[in-house]
Amino acid sequence: MKPSLAKGTRDFTAQEVYRRKYIINTLQKNFELFGFQPLETPSFENLSTLTGKYGEEGDRLIFKILDSGDYLKKTKADWLDSLKINSDIDLLIDRIQEYINNNLNFTVDNVLKLDNYFGKLFLEVVKSDEIKDIINLFYQNVNKDDVDFEYEKIKLKSKLISKAFVISENKINSQKLIAQISEKALRYDLTVPFARFVAMNQGTLTFPFKRYQIQPVWRADRPQKGRFREFYQCDADVVGSESLWQEVELVQLYLKSFKELQIPVKIHINNRKILSGLAEFAQISEQLIDFTVALDKLDKIGKEGVVKELKEKNISDEAIEKLSFLFDNKPQSEVLEILKTNFANVEIGKNGVEELEFVLENCKNLGIEDELVFNITLARGLDYYTGAIFEVKAQGVEMGSIGGGGRYNNLTEVFGVKNVPGIGISFGLDRIYLVIEELNLFPQNSERKIEYLFANYGEKEAAEAMKVLAKLREKGIAAEIYPESAKLKKQFTYAEKKGIENLIFLGEQEIAEGNITIKNLTSGEQKTIKIEEFLS
Amino acid sequence: MKPSLAKGTRDFTAQEVYRRKYIINTLQKNFELFGFQPLETPSFENLSTLTGKYGEEGDRLIFKILDSGDYLKKTKADWLDSLKINSDIDLLIDRIQEYINNNLNFTVDNVLKLDNYFGKLFLEVVKSDEIKDIINLFYQNVNKDDVDFEYEKIKLKSKLISKAFVISENKINSQKLIAQISEKALRYDLTVPFARFVAMNQGTLTFPFKRYQIQPVWRADRPQKGRFREFYQCDADVVGSESLWQEVELVQLYLKSFKELQIPVKIHINNRKILSGLAEFAQISEQLIDFTVALDKLDKIGKEGVVKELKEKNISDEAIEKLSFLFDNKPQSEVLEILKTNFANVEIGKNGVEELEFVLENCKNLGIEDELVFNITLARGLDYYTGAIFEVKAQGVEMGSIGGGGRYNNLTEVFGVKNVPGIGISFGLDRIYLVIEELNLFPQNSERKIEYLFANYGEKEAAEAMKVLAKLREKGIAAEIYPESAKLKKQFTYAEKKGIENLIFLGEQEIAEGNITIKNLTSGEQKTIKIEEFLS
Repeated sequence: MKPSLAKGTRDFTAQEVYRRKYIINTLQKNFELFGFQPLETPSFENLSTLTGKYGEEGDRLIFKILDSGDYLKKTKADWLDSLKINSDIDLLIDRIQEYINNNLNFTVDNVLKLDNYFGKLFLEVVKSDEIKDIINLFYQNVNKDDVDFEYEKIKLKSKLISKAFVISENKINSQKLIAQISEKALRYDLTVPFARFVAMNQGTLTFPFKRYQIQPVWRADRPQKGRFREFYQCDADVVGSESLWQEVELVQLYLKSFKELQIPVKIHINNRKILSGLAEFAQISEQLIDFTVALDKLDKIGKEGVVKELKEKNISDEAIEKLSFLFDNKPQSEVLEILKTNFANVEIGKNGVEELEFVLENCKNLGIEDELVFNITLARGLDYYTGAIFEVKAQGVEMGSIGGGGRYNNLTEVFGVKNVPGIGISFGLDRIYLVIEELNLFPQNSERKIEYLFANYGEKEAAEAMKVLAKLREKGIAAEIYPESAKLKKQFTYAEKKGIENLIFLGEQEIAEGNITIKNLTSGEQKTIKIEEFLS
Repeated sequence: MKPSLAKGTRDFTAQEVYRRKYIINTLQKNFELFGFQPLETPSFENLSTLTGKYGEEGDRLIFKILDSGDYLKKTKADWLDSLKINSDIDLLIDRIQEYINNNLNFTVDNVLKLDNYFGKLFLEVVKSDEIKDIINLFYQNVNKDDVDFEYEKIKLKSKLISKAFVISENKINSQKLIAQISEKALRYDLTVPFARFVAMNQGTLTFPFKRYQIQPVWRADRPQKGRFREFYQCDADVVGSESLWQEVELVQLYLKSFKELQIPVKIHINNRKILSGLAEFAQISEQLIDFTVALDKLDKIGKEGVVKELKEKNISDEAIEKLSFLFDNKPQSEVLEILKTNFANVEIGKNGVEELEFVLENCKNLGIEDELVFNITLARGLDYYTGAIFEVKAQGVEMGSIGGGGRYNNLTEVFGVKNVPGIGISFGLDRIYLVIEELNLFPQNSERKIEYLFANYGEKEAAEAMKVLAKLREKGIAAEIYPESAKLKKQFTYAEKKGIENLIFLGEQEIAEGNITIKNLTSGEQKTIKIEEFLS
């Protein structure tokens, strides 16, 4: 059998693991500097915890885990039952004939009560009034003299079988069956498990609760270049406070982290309340989503394109005219002034502008205004944001956003716990990796280098080498011995391929003289010194 | 909806994450000091990569992932088909009647060929000669004059329906259906994915290849105290070399790691070749497993118990007599001497003793003989070990083994790649955690402490605090500000609950005077100093 990776997954070799760790460690360190504490949740959750939180598309993309054991037990009973449906129908017809022959008082319910032979599927088939009517009609018809009994029978059978098909088909619907054969699913993001954790532990947590979480998530997306079915999310959230200082702190956290990673970034900021205010101002509140989706494309399709799309969505010329100041790439300060005028009577919009200005002003106060950009076109997809929204763009590379987040009104409402407002940001590990790679910014020392390879000259010499090795490792120096006394060339090649810096010769003569010979594989330089000197 | 964790899984809060990281970082550091490099494989693999590698029980315990989309497509067709089975049988009987009436040349195949109305399930039912014979017999019977046709029909129908039941039941067998509705599964251990990786990349890897891997694995085991459905494995393996120096190195790696974790341990060592040799010596090679399973219990059930169990397994008195020197708790040196005598003509046993002595002697040479114990009763479960086997026992606590491993002949044979011998060891993270907890050995500083909480006096003061905060974080000091200007008592409580060391007051007066007031929450000590002094 030829082994392969599952679709959309990756192995990470040493260099990749080290480089990913370099990013993760940097983020982790900064999360902690800002008072966030780590949380880890399990890879899988109860399916009911996850479904219904990500929309229909999201539900489809959740990886479900098949129940263990005889997960088909229930389904199987249904299936086997369906084998009986034809004979059940025959039995029904027999009974009807008996009623006719004996002149009994016929009702469908009476017939069904008579016998507990009928299968579950058949009983489901005759449950509806519509089918009962059909059976009654059959009874009345065949009771007449001039009717072809065999023909009526065939007609009835075909109707009942059709119904049984519909019921059966419905039962073995993949989507519906999931609930019967799967009760667990892989984590789809870090937010819902976090919400589940907060809802479960609200009594014991200290609020505001600041947690960071760096773990993989899984999505059954069609794999594409740069899009995988398993990938890491790195999230920091504060819940239990509506203070706008969080927004300021999270902007700082973003900037400090990316500065340390040496990635030049701009943070785009907007506020959902401003977008809602604009819709209210233009009297298109019902079309808020159409409006923000179109506005979000301004960069790509220009003013003309946006206006065209708004018209296609049946937004009135009047509304478009009122909003047109947004499409002219005016400086952010000018847009802000217009917004303030327009929002004179729009409470939510006024409130959004105030929130935005608080963040902008306090970031200016901290000297980080240059990297923070008010971007009125920023909308972000997730429905649950209710205040500030962020997106981070790397400068000098083509690479969508490498981070994003925002404020939400309630994290845990879906789990029945109210009044847990919060704000969170996320770092896109895979994209950050690609940016650092493209800008050639991975530090040389992000990899753990093995400094020495002891050449193996045979059992006696190797035994001596082992002693020196143990001392080196005690000092925290990574080193190893070639496991066999192979040809020196082979041992050389091993060291070179593995990127080991120095080869060490500890042969019979060296041992006798208490020496050690070190050859630097980069410079080619070679020197023989006392073992004690080497170790100190 | 009241949220809960999926059965057998855990959340890890800050303290637990930090403590687990302390263990993982220690292991990782030591793996690297010994020249091992990291590898990470995906959480799920193709199901075919995993099945058949862990025995029947293991296959059952693999978590399978349900295919996305309409995973029941195939099953559904079968199911709906089964709704037709009764009418198919009726049709068959009609056809048979036609043959009788028209005196045609009857064979089952002719009848079936006549019509493509018959469903797939029915065709499967009549595929076997046994069923064809039954139909032929029916034809011959009903062709006779004195036979009750209706009775014969009912008999035939019931036989065919029974067969259809068997076929259908077989088709919706949970185990068999897995292959149709699941093509992926969660990692069950780290060894098989490692083997898959080596087999896929053999052309580009440098051998001997030394990798370590620290990742979670998942097993659908019944959860118990200390046994979870998601847990970490920490493995180090060298493949591509048979050198016994690896055994010596891995003993050192174990000892150095546990020394650093301050856990006193003994490493038990044995060799599978010695066990095979003993079976050969006693002429019970076919009962090797019965023998080792019984021997493994010597500690618990004593000599008498072992002898009793061997007898129950039909091992002869003569063989037991030959092996009895093993059951007397003789010193290891004495057992070794007896083994050498007994193995005079047992090649595999002799070889095993030589290997063992090489490891023991070279460990002695390195001064680590006290912690290495030859234990002839050690067997270990996994079938694939072929040479040295190890188990690590923590001293002074009741806690099975906290690590284990051994040498194997071929890692990648199941994937069609030969000649990849190797040796590996594993650290049991959860048990190590419990031991360290029980011995109270977690270092104080394994947690990242937040050193300062700035009290929040309101917008103006907070803005000043933010500036000082930024400088502290720049210096790598973790600090935060309480997000709201709540009552001081509330802010106090927050700091205490979160374990923050100091509270900082930066009120109006302090700001005017360029001062800062620091209150140590442990000692209660409070002092006011210049901000510059504080920052330097």
